[in-house]
Amino acid sequence: MGNIIVAQSGGPTVAINASLAGVIEGALSSKYDTIYGSINGITGIIDDNIINLSEVVKSDSNFLKKLKVTPAMYLGSCRFKLPSVTSNDPIYNTLFQQFKKYDIEAFFYIGGNDSMDTVDKLSAYAKSIDSPIRFIGVPKTVDNDLCVTDHTPGFGSAAKYIATTTMEVIYDAKIYNTPSVTIIEVMGRDAGWLTAATSLARNNCCCGPDLIYLPEVPFDTEVFVNDLSKLLKEKTNIVVAVSEGIRDAKGEYISASTGQLDNFGHAQLSGAGKTLEYIVKDKLGVKVRSIEVNVLQRAAAHMSSLTDLQESVELGKHGVQFAEEGVTGAMVVLNRTSNAPYTVDYSHATISDIANEAKEVPQEWINDSHNWVTDEMLEYLKPLVIGEPELEYENGLPVYVTR
Amino acid sequence: MGNIIVAQSGGPTVAINASLAGVIEGALSSKYDTIYGSINGITGIIDDNIINLSEVVKSDSNFLKKLKVTPAMYLGSCRFKLPSVTSNDPIYNTLFQQFKKYDIEAFFYIGGNDSMDTVDKLSAYAKSIDSPIRFIGVPKTVDNDLCVTDHTPGFGSAAKYIATTTMEVIYDAKIYNTPSVTIIEVMGRDAGWLTAATSLARNNCCCGPDLIYLPEVPFDTEVFVNDLSKLLKEKTNIVVAVSEGIRDAKGEYISASTGQLDNFGHAQLSGAGKTLEYIVKDKLGVKVRSIEVNVLQRAAAHMSSLTDLQESVELGKHGVQFAEEGVTGAMVVLNRTSNAPYTVDYSHATISDIANEAKEVPQEWINDSHNWVTDEMLEYLKPLVIGEPELEYENGLPVYVTR
Repeated sequence: MGNIIVAQSGGPTVAINASLAGVIEGALSSKYDTIYGSINGITGIIDDNIINLSEVVKSDSNFLKKLKVTPAMYLGSCRFKLPSVTSNDPIYNTLFQQFKKYDIEAFFYIGGNDSMDTVDKLSAYAKSIDSPIRFIGVPKTVDNDLCVTDHTPGFGSAAKYIATTTMEVIYDAKIYNTPSVTIIEVMGRDAGWLTAATSLARNNCCCGPDLIYLPEVPFDTEVFVNDLSKLLKEKTNIVVAVSEGIRDAKGEYISASTGQLDNFGHAQLSGAGKTLEYIVKDKLGVKVRSIEVNVLQRAAAHMSSLTDLQESVELGKHGVQFAEEGVTGAMVVLNRTSNAPYTVDYSHATISDIANEAKEVPQEWINDSHNWVTDEMLEYLKPLVIGEPELEYENGLPVYVTR
Repeated sequence: MGNIIVAQSGGPTVAINASLAGVIEGALSSKYDTIYGSINGITGIIDDNIINLSEVVKSDSNFLKKLKVTPAMYLGSCRFKLPSVTSNDPIYNTLFQQFKKYDIEAFFYIGGNDSMDTVDKLSAYAKSIDSPIRFIGVPKTVDNDLCVTDHTPGFGSAAKYIATTTMEVIYDAKIYNTPSVTIIEVMGRDAGWLTAATSLARNNCCCGPDLIYLPEVPFDTEVFVNDLSKLLKEKTNIVVAVSEGIRDAKGEYISASTGQLDNFGHAQLSGAGKTLEYIVKDKLGVKVRSIEVNVLQRAAAHMSSLTDLQESVELGKHGVQFAEEGVTGAMVVLNRTSNAPYTVDYSHATISDIANEAKEVPQEWINDSHNWVTDEMLEYLKPLVIGEPELEYENGLPVYVTR
């Protein structure tokens, strides 16, 4: 029988390697023969930078277990946008020559919105040349902004790390009996899912952040200062969670934007937290600091969610199963079938319904004052952070696997 | 018999509550009767904001176990510098009246350099008025810059978190095959211990940071750019660890200093990492980002070191034991009696030899190029990060205890 090839793309999360392990496990018990891995996303296929994952698995019996808890991307990533299918660009011919050379029957791309765009184009091109190769997208993104799927791998772990970190920052912030404001800036360019996850820090042992601002509603600096100054009359130490992507009513980012765009046309942001820090200092004269959780929120595998990792493995496995069944041009999808007890099942959806669309936080999951989330959001988030990763430690540090 | 009172002071770490648990455990099996806690450091004694910890322990059989893994300060902190003992300031009279009111025989202050200064002054005052009250300092500081003791509680946990985070940032940084520089800014105003701990990320599954710059040697921007540009010829993704406190040959901070001083006369720093980010962008034109680990490094109890927590408990217990033996004006001290196997014992040292002195990284533990540490440093650090904290989880998040 023929072979498969798998690649990873886009920004890192702590669950992308769990999905890679899932694809490998799925393929090992499938009709497919050799499992190839393309280094640095689809560019590895173009540059013939391809490794034999079947051999890697054979050489280390513990490999898959370690891979499942390893952050970022074992195969490396790329930011590479394919030209339009109708462009007649020779890159498509190059790619399909490579697929032929390695006798590829199915290609799996683990990634976010932009990677799904690649899967969509490849399957459309395959259709146009009557190629039988299957193209399957396996979702991931800490941002949780992919459509159709209930949530995305990587999000639950990032949510767990962010909620834990928010708790710990709140403990840190409240030790002095002098007024202070702490601003936690969380990732999420267009969607507030990750920032909303700070709400999980309101529990039996922590009061949670006092205010939460998401990018889904226009940010009004005056209202923010007013929210704060009211709270400072009731409480000494205020902790605010804010998305990096908050914008004013005109759509301008509350940040010092560099004005640069990445390859996909996204604005490069920095500094919503820092900007608010200056505003608070200026308007309220209170002690204030800002904390940018930065890449730690997408890299902290030591605080990943077991639920997230297990689902990520299952998504990879189901991708292989769907390819065997003849599915192509599709992304594997997670459906929440029940919330209490929490259960999911797996299906697939047409990529063209998903690619390049972003799923925002619904307005009805944000409170009327636009500074916290509703119980529906909390119920949605809670099951995703359950369970601790099965880590091995060596000399006090977690054991991950590297190429 | 008489009672004791305990307080916490200075900046938070994840091990200060373990020392508080140690003082409580020590007192429960001592001649002392009631255990009082002063809220917000010594200011709680002045303001009569005092709680009965014996009652708290009785009311929750799980309290001490949870307290040992809880970050920051259960009793709250303060930044309060006592006036000179010879000043005849009435505050001393106020304090000793309070000690009399609560029938205090011993006072325990868990804190860093500045808290030891308070213990020193209180014991000197006690001597001057022939008071039999014992004053014992229990060390803590993530900075590890207290003299006499081999290391300080809180440091091992922060080192473990920093090393793990550095590993995870390195995994995150190396996914693209395009040149990049990542700068991790670590706490440590005058001492490079925490920044040095990033070296632990060079292990079986990670290459560790490529360059490490400590505040103990003058920082030369030209040499730094040269170090980087040499490395970029050999390697694609460079990760640099840098102390917030690096200074040039003239002693000027490599940062955008605000010029403000805190109550103890320390400069308020920010931005060594950010400053270097701009320098790299300007001089090398390579993709660069900086990550400020910020307060997470002193707050992340979920990644604390069991060795650190256990030693912190023991220091608290020994403090009570020493007070019973009549010791006063002393700090409890950790001595490393062997490195392999790692063993420690506990003693005490005269506060006046410790207070207001900072222990720097020895020059011989920094390499000749001033951009990494020597094997002696690694051997010193390794035992301190061993063991994982005994956490309970509820709804996916660690359980801590709050007042």
